[in-house]
Amino acid sequence: MKINGKHTRTIWLAADGQGVEIIDQTKLPHDFVVVRLDSLEDAEAAIRDMWVRGAPLIGATAAYGVALGLRAGTSDARFEEVYKRLYATRPTAVNLRWALDEMKALLLPLPEADRLAAAYKRAAEICDEDAAICEAIGTHGAALIAEIWKKKQAEGAKCVNVLTHCNAGWLATVDWGTAIAPIYKAFEQGIPLHVWVDETRPRNQGASLTARELNWHGVPHTVIVDNAGGHIMQHGMVDLCIVGTDRTTADGDVCNKIGTYLKALAAKDNGVPFYIGLPGPTIDWTLSDGVKEIPIEERDPTEVTHIQGRGPDGKLVSVQLTPDGSPAINYGFDVTPARLVTGLITERGVCPASRAGLTSLYPEHR
Amino acid sequence: MKINGKHTRTIWLAADGQGVEIIDQTKLPHDFVVVRLDSLEDAEAAIRDMWVRGAPLIGATAAYGVALGLRAGTSDARFEEVYKRLYATRPTAVNLRWALDEMKALLLPLPEADRLAAAYKRAAEICDEDAAICEAIGTHGAALIAEIWKKKQAEGAKCVNVLTHCNAGWLATVDWGTAIAPIYKAFEQGIPLHVWVDETRPRNQGASLTARELNWHGVPHTVIVDNAGGHIMQHGMVDLCIVGTDRTTADGDVCNKIGTYLKALAAKDNGVPFYIGLPGPTIDWTLSDGVKEIPIEERDPTEVTHIQGRGPDGKLVSVQLTPDGSPAINYGFDVTPARLVTGLITERGVCPASRAGLTSLYPEHR
Repeated sequence: MKINGKHTRTIWLAADGQGVEIIDQTKLPHDFVVVRLDSLEDAEAAIRDMWVRGAPLIGATAAYGVALGLRAGTSDARFEEVYKRLYATRPTAVNLRWALDEMKALLLPLPEADRLAAAYKRAAEICDEDAAICEAIGTHGAALIAEIWKKKQAEGAKCVNVLTHCNAGWLATVDWGTAIAPIYKAFEQGIPLHVWVDETRPRNQGASLTARELNWHGVPHTVIVDNAGGHIMQHGMVDLCIVGTDRTTADGDVCNKIGTYLKALAAKDNGVPFYIGLPGPTIDWTLSDGVKEIPIEERDPTEVTHIQGRGPDGKLVSVQLTPDGSPAINYGFDVTPARLVTGLITERGVCPASRAGLTSLYPEHR
Repeated sequence: MKINGKHTRTIWLAADGQGVEIIDQTKLPHDFVVVRLDSLEDAEAAIRDMWVRGAPLIGATAAYGVALGLRAGTSDARFEEVYKRLYATRPTAVNLRWALDEMKALLLPLPEADRLAAAYKRAAEICDEDAAICEAIGTHGAALIAEIWKKKQAEGAKCVNVLTHCNAGWLATVDWGTAIAPIYKAFEQGIPLHVWVDETRPRNQGASLTARELNWHGVPHTVIVDNAGGHIMQHGMVDLCIVGTDRTTADGDVCNKIGTYLKALAAKDNGVPFYIGLPGPTIDWTLSDGVKEIPIEERDPTEVTHIQGRGPDGKLVSVQLTPDGSPAINYGFDVTPARLVTGLITERGVCPASRAGLTSLYPEHR
């Protein structure tokens, strides 16, 4: 999407056609720093040190990482080393594995001399495919927003108010985002919008990344603490919620950033539609009951006891929030039961959060 | 309650019987600093600059502030000046006004020569009365916890898990606290307890004050982000919630720190009892529908965009969390409808969150 009017992706081939450029997202929201990756080592650092984050963007970076790695040699042995080292950067990232396997299936059957060019080409395609999937989610979701706007406009309202949690925007993908794609599409269609951005403790991806990208693109928004969503829904200040998901079960239970479930409860209690933006590949067809079956990652408690921000001297600094000796625990995700979800917005259309709904769009999983 | 084994209140007469000592709560949770107040000016600063906070403690400080102010003279004119200046420190604080009126009604009819001693005596009584009210809330609430423990113990559980939001502990009162008083009472009765402490953005009173006082007193606890409460309730890790309130309507709607409503929704969805600890004077008998009738204070947005913590050099520092140019809004409170509240724990006993329930305990308001 746009940064001060200029269309930008999160990853792109450098002007010389050799290097790959990314945004160092650890510097956001305060500084915009583009980093050039030239080697396998650079790509490893980009993924491992979280200069890039978000499943789709990690996959795209891994694909380009293979191309960068093959610049030093295109033998089977070199490919295996590149695969192994990139895989080790974040071994639990599903898209990372998928992208590496995709490259492997394509490249190993080719003559060594053709592999480098093919790797660059396929990495670019993976980026384009991801952007296209996200844009399709945007198109389907924007139709829902347009419908709500039609009704609200007739009632004399000035805009549609959307609430989102965490960052499922273009910074987590190659372009467009998942949950935020419908907002960008509706914005481009001229629908007046305002976005409530949950700050999303503990890692504050809402306050830092979602606010940053909406701000860049020019979409009106307001940052709120995670505690505020219930109050604003009670007072008619939210017309719909759209959030992303890390994993959705075949029955439509949604695993997403911790706190999503609380917002879904508030939406239900106040008659506010609650939508999920998701690419088909994040549906886990092997799972049914998300609350029972999805193990919730426990992350480092220092993400709760400490927080990073820009200090008075302009430098990033981490400060301690809790007293010494008070323990903390840090669950990364929660599960929102399908009964609280109004609909799933996928690249193939919108469906109810149920097995019947999902298989109507993905009949190959019937 | 206790600080490293030594019983401590939030305000007390100094050993010389003249000065008044308080804890500078702006230094918490990292530093424990006792400040001696000797004059009207000191008392004004203590309230205005929030060295003391929490309605009951503000009231107690104002009462002692009158005594300190009368040290410079006990004429009617001096009393009126003392009243006016203390009132101006936080004119919206109901307990502040109440304490000043209490002192006025007592002191002005007395001969000037008797006023100073009477002021010290009444201020001490106000402190004792507040502690007694809070202790009574503790006793009634502990009975509920004991009942839950009896059941859990029979099921082989190791402790009772209580979730609380914000700080309604002894640091907000003279001693015991309101929502936390039942926890201290149950702890003293030997019931094994563990407290989930919501950090309570934006001002983080949970992470800083509630964690601090539980830590000092030795009550096992864990700090969580506000987003985590739904997840832990879904997984049977919370046996009851107890929170405080700033204002409760005659029909039992509860206005409390922003985010309380979301926790009440999660408690309802998971069959977890949701209790409010409150002193009778916080019931607003003139109000009925809290969502419609209680205006919600909008506080400074920098409480959302910035946060204070202890930097690597050990000094307190405020850091910016949001990008420049992204606006924020800061609602201080929300309203939890009575239908989500299991019971109100008052100094007179526990009752349902309804007009019938409240008037059964406070028949003078029937």
